[in-house]
Amino acid sequence: MTPFIAAVDWGTSSFRLWLLDADGQVIAESRSDEGMMKARDIGFASVLDRHLDDVSAPAELPVVICGMAGAKQGWREANYLETPAALKELVENSVRIGAKRPIHILPGICQRDVRYPDVMRGEETQLLGAVAEGTRSGLVCMPGTHSKWVQLDEGRVTRFSTFMTGELYAAIAGHTILKLALADQPDASPDAQAFSRAVLRAMENPEQVTARLFSIRSGPLLGLAEAAEGAAKLSGELIGLELAGARAQFGRVEAVTLVGAGKLFELYRAALEAASMKVHPVDADAAVRAGLLSAGTALFGQAVAGA
Amino acid sequence: MTPFIAAVDWGTSSFRLWLLDADGQVIAESRSDEGMMKARDIGFASVLDRHLDDVSAPAELPVVICGMAGAKQGWREANYLETPAALKELVENSVRIGAKRPIHILPGICQRDVRYPDVMRGEETQLLGAVAEGTRSGLVCMPGTHSKWVQLDEGRVTRFSTFMTGELYAAIAGHTILKLALADQPDASPDAQAFSRAVLRAMENPEQVTARLFSIRSGPLLGLAEAAEGAAKLSGELIGLELAGARAQFGRVEAVTLVGAGKLFELYRAALEAASMKVHPVDADAAVRAGLLSAGTALFGQAVAGA
Repeated sequence: MTPFIAAVDWGTSSFRLWLLDADGQVIAESRSDEGMMKARDIGFASVLDRHLDDVSAPAELPVVICGMAGAKQGWREANYLETPAALKELVENSVRIGAKRPIHILPGICQRDVRYPDVMRGEETQLLGAVAEGTRSGLVCMPGTHSKWVQLDEGRVTRFSTFMTGELYAAIAGHTILKLALADQPDASPDAQAFSRAVLRAMENPEQVTARLFSIRSGPLLGLAEAAEGAAKLSGELIGLELAGARAQFGRVEAVTLVGAGKLFELYRAALEAASMKVHPVDADAAVRAGLLSAGTALFGQAVAGA
Repeated sequence: MTPFIAAVDWGTSSFRLWLLDADGQVIAESRSDEGMMKARDIGFASVLDRHLDDVSAPAELPVVICGMAGAKQGWREANYLETPAALKELVENSVRIGAKRPIHILPGICQRDVRYPDVMRGEETQLLGAVAEGTRSGLVCMPGTHSKWVQLDEGRVTRFSTFMTGELYAAIAGHTILKLALADQPDASPDAQAFSRAVLRAMENPEQVTARLFSIRSGPLLGLAEAAEGAAKLSGELIGLELAGARAQFGRVEAVTLVGAGKLFELYRAALEAASMKVHPVDADAAVRAGLLSAGTALFGQAVAGA
């Protein structure tokens, strides 16, 4: 396989590089924890160079990057597109670095809405990938530290909303009295009844979430609940609150494209199904690679084809 | 003034002792951070003895204690009363330690409700004090790390609910991306429009709280909100969510007895008034002293009167 581009997903705390051929097949891969936070200290160029060496990338192979490398605190700022934003415009608005080797950083998308101001960096490239693979319209859920819900309309992001679900889970599980309740517990299982019940409770009575969180501790203390269900309940309450918010913002949709991977994907799939929403699964890693490939094809397709 | 009892409020992370005369006047006071967590290591008896020495308490002066000293992980377990619980029964159910000097630990109250299991230790003694001072019925709000809302009916706790508001504020402000948004900011001011607007927004759309939390960061990032309003917004959203939950559980009440002190009291007063609820203020420190005095009078009133 002939390398076509190096595709980079540069997050806040993680770095992933794939050597892709022109069909998007993965030739080689290199990842580390040198996300934006670490790369600011080490130097973005040297982090990238080391990973390119790792996969023996040819000296003039183009690089396409998405994520926090384009943030104000990143390598080079790539200004946000504004909603409504056509995903194909990501390419035209990319920022080019480097002379010999072309390096392009894709911009994020922002929503200049006084009531719901919002930003994304990285997810827009997954969306570009999903669009390239055929999902051009509909509601998209992208679970994570900062979960995104995105309304797509014919390849354009018309509206989106970020829920701090993943980060809230970590902060609550790690830094409140629930730490005691969750100690030595299995992670939330998507099969657990306690999980789906908590999702539905939160959707029905979102105003009781902070009261029910305390009952994760008081229930077992009084012998009224299984201690082992704590993680499932905390996860279910927070995901349920997100679903309640998304449904209120985006309407009662029947089907959602779920872009995710691993454990979190399974939890959201279970939550959405418990809430009677149909799930179209999209693998998050495959989506970001497809998005970077799509950008690379738009940027370098002809040059390479002519090489 | 003649010492009548040593009154002790023994929390999770704080210890406070007052030497009171028979009218509840404070003769001397001693406080430290030797709450239950530290006292478990040092030894409860030696912590108490040192503070009694600090205020030169007579050798046989009775001690009345409320709070976490009576927890299972505390000094000696004082079993919970169950709702509906008459506050005067706290005294009859206190646990006595010590031979020469009588030391009584008051129990907490629990709610054995499968849907809303709940516990309190310490607040019941503030309630006993509020009842002794004339607040026998009505809805009581007790802000704090774990805010309590309590329905009082003629000196009985019929129902209560704990909201993790204070602890959530600390976990979110200290351990999520909002840390960046709140850095170098003034604390929330009860006068701030941003605070009361956030309270009302959360009451109206509680399902959007985790989305609006993210906008505390994205708003200033896009120049659509004042960075300096972040703490007021976070505080307003979480207190508003608590008010929405309390109102759904306890009904649309017009007046609330607010038991608190300092900054938090002022924030809750502003929030309740923004939500058109009338506030009857009760000082939290005065209430806990009045409760411990009331228990002391029931336990030792005659003996001391006859001494």
